[in-house]
Amino acid sequence: MPVTAAELYRERGIGARQAPIRRPALVVVDLTYGFTDTDCALGCEAGQVDQAVEQVARLLAAARAAGVPRAFTRIEYDEASTAIAAPFLEKMPALRECAAGSRWAEIDKRVAPEPGEPVLRKLFASGFFGTDLAAFLAVHGRDGVVVTGATTSGCVRATVVDALQHGYRVLVPRDAVVDRASGPHEAALFDIQAKYGQVVDVSEAEAVLRA
Amino acid sequence: MPVTAAELYRERGIGARQAPIRRPALVVVDLTYGFTDTDCALGCEAGQVDQAVEQVARLLAAARAAGVPRAFTRIEYDEASTAIAAPFLEKMPALRECAAGSRWAEIDKRVAPEPGEPVLRKLFASGFFGTDLAAFLAVHGRDGVVVTGATTSGCVRATVVDALQHGYRVLVPRDAVVDRASGPHEAALFDIQAKYGQVVDVSEAEAVLRA
Amino acid sequence: MPVTAAELYRERGIGARQAPIRRPALVVVDLTYGFTDTDCALGCEAGQVDQAVEQVARLLAAARAAGVPRAFTRIEYDEASTAIAAPFLEKMPALRECAAGSRWAEIDKRVAPEPGEPVLRKLFASGFFGTDLAAFLAVHGRDGVVVTGATTSGCVRATVVDALQHGYRVLVPRDAVVDRASGPHEAALFDIQAKYGQVVDVSEAEAVLRA
Amino acid sequence: MPVTAAELYRERGIGARQAPIRRPALVVVDLTYGFTDTDCALGCEAGQVDQAVEQVARLLAAARAAGVPRAFTRIEYDEASTAIAAPFLEKMPALRECAAGSRWAEIDKRVAPEPGEPVLRKLFASGFFGTDLAAFLAVHGRDGVVVTGATTSGCVRATVVDALQHGYRVLVPRDAVVDRASGPHEAALFDIQAKYGQVVDVSEAEAVLRA
Repeated sequence: MPVTAAELYRERGIGARQAPIRRPALVVVDLTYGFTDTDCALGCEAGQVDQAVEQVARLLAAARAAGVPRAFTRIEYDEASTAIAAPFLEKMPALRECAAGSRWAEIDKRVAPEPGEPVLRKLFASGFFGTDLAAFLAVHGRDGVVVTGATTSGCVRATVVDALQHGYRVLVPRDAVVDRASGPHEAALFDIQAKYGQVVDVSEAEAVLRA
Repeated sequence: MPVTAAELYRERGIGARQAPIRRPALVVVDLTYGFTDTDCALGCEAGQVDQAVEQVARLLAAARAAGVPRAFTRIEYDEASTAIAAPFLEKMPALRECAAGSRWAEIDKRVAPEPGEPVLRKLFASGFFGTDLAAFLAVHGRDGVVVTGATTSGCVRATVVDALQHGYRVLVPRDAVVDRASGPHEAALFDIQAKYGQVVDVSEAEAVLRA
Repeated sequence: MPVTAAELYRERGIGARQAPIRRPALVVVDLTYGFTDTDCALGCEAGQVDQAVEQVARLLAAARAAGVPRAFTRIEYDEASTAIAAPFLEKMPALRECAAGSRWAEIDKRVAPEPGEPVLRKLFASGFFGTDLAAFLAVHGRDGVVVTGATTSGCVRATVVDALQHGYRVLVPRDAVVDRASGPHEAALFDIQAKYGQVVDVSEAEAVLRA
Repeated sequence: MPVTAAELYRERGIGARQAPIRRPALVVVDLTYGFTDTDCALGCEAGQVDQAVEQVARLLAAARAAGVPRAFTRIEYDEASTAIAAPFLEKMPALRECAAGSRWAEIDKRVAPEPGEPVLRKLFASGFFGTDLAAFLAVHGRDGVVVTGATTSGCVRATVVDALQHGYRVLVPRDAVVDRASGPHEAALFDIQAKYGQVVDVSEAEAVLRA
């Protein structure tokens, strides 16, 4: 009898739970209007995206109240960085919408960064790549990261993998991440839960941030 | 009328084709017995894995004949690296099978490295992380990478994303990558084709290596 | 009879010459007013700095004429990045002068970047750290880097070491790098020539850029 | 009246003291026989090197007693890695002495690693480059690094700069680092003290490890 991937993983020792995070950071990936506004070619699923932004706002409030370090990433291309990221932009011409200075490259005001919260500009998928996110986590003595934002199967997932590779445990609050389509979204959550971090309810992530 | 993710991506400008690769490298990800032998908890799908190993052998032969640089990665943990990779091993206890010196950490002889081909030991998902793979590609003046091996949704995908982020275009020959279950395998190929590289037939990758 | 370090190195096989660079890039490190204006606490040696800026301008002209890729780095701290770079700023409080938006964080107009030339903001010493410089070199298929700017013993040297580590050969045109004091400047050039790249006349670097 | 670089730096706000390290790690850089035995072309100054090895042994004992994480680096080249590190080996042909499996690539038994202490193989100068040292520090929740070993002006210095860039404060115990010649050794200590970390007595580093 065929088994599902979930059953197979469970019996193989894949998808267990990481040690608890005691000194978390909150990372908000790419919640610029380009990803939160369905008028942009990059925009996430209408209906889902407003809920996700709301949940991220809730987690930001918790992190701020608890003094937990927060960082944001955003994608933006000018003439020079368009050349550097050529292989990515060839593949996803829609990314050109994130033009420097445009509304699509601006973080949604519903989750606006506050002074002192780094907003890391990146050209690629992972929030760690070509940014100071690793130094941010190390200098603040973190042992884990709550990763939120968009898109689940793209920049969120790449950031999750890199967080693990840098030595951090990971929580992904299910309703605080969002994608353009449900297939890739669910597949990414499945893989994250199997291999890289815990996919949890927003309330569980909130409790970790407040602890 | 609901559209599929594929339709949505096409109309949005996601999933186009990157410029052709003129100076490729071939990377073989994690084809150790731990991943090619279904007796190991990490083993890939019986039936698929032998075919994938055969296709990688074919691509290796083409790359060797054409003088295209080749590199291998493999996962191996000793006592010290088990501690470093703790968040990954907590999540996937099955990875402990890749013990230093064990058969599971040894590259399958059907795709055995030849002298001069680097075999990069890694602790995490991406073949670039904590290895000299980026320097290998740069010193050989490459402009793209053919990524093969296992698993499609894990280390292959992470290596693909990092290849793109390092400035390289990517080809993934569909039948030269393999996974433990078809759901994650297909989802990873879908995402790679949409965002990071071209998923192609083995014959197309072979032609690029021979060009 | 005691030998000098130079003699010792020569007889030991240290300080040989790297293979010629055929596809160079030109990198201009930190020629912001903070480093070129002696009114800033970070400013380089009066007398030397104007000459160095002039030589960099000459190399920029050569690179532009030849279509050789150019990139600039600059240091800038806002509230958030001040926290990330805390260990560096504790050590060198003078770096706080490079405040976001200030003249000290602005590139000297004598070597002003042109549209399409990346200006990479960095928080630390190496031009590669937390930036997209490695992707810039890879995507342009470079095999070597001409490193210029300030300071020789600080960010220039750190960038030189990282260029080598990323797989690139290095030229440092002696009169196109500058420091705050001659002791550290000379010691850095000595070490670079011994271990990491060729310290050459500006005319030799110019010839490589024009070739 | 001319001022020394030291005086200049002091009045400019360069060379201050970083915040205290509360959760240190100890890193031992390249104390293989190739660097500790003056019969090797890479060997450090006779007379100084035995003392340095002895001081590192003392710091290792302190770190082990206090349960402070320790890591070692070593350089080793086989046929494949010789090609990857070509620009470095062209510059320093003496590095070819560190052949895989040779005595020169083996860590001096006076500071032999114990089980569980990672020995990170590297091809370049920095202990962080192409290794898992950053993940090691992060997973152990460190906030600073005591860097020891050889050579002061080469791999020690490069490791110090990278430790700072990764978000860590740095101590360099003066008598626990060693070089081939006193000029580059002293110049490196001067720069480290000015820009990257604290150059301290071994007893001060020992007290930090024991705290």
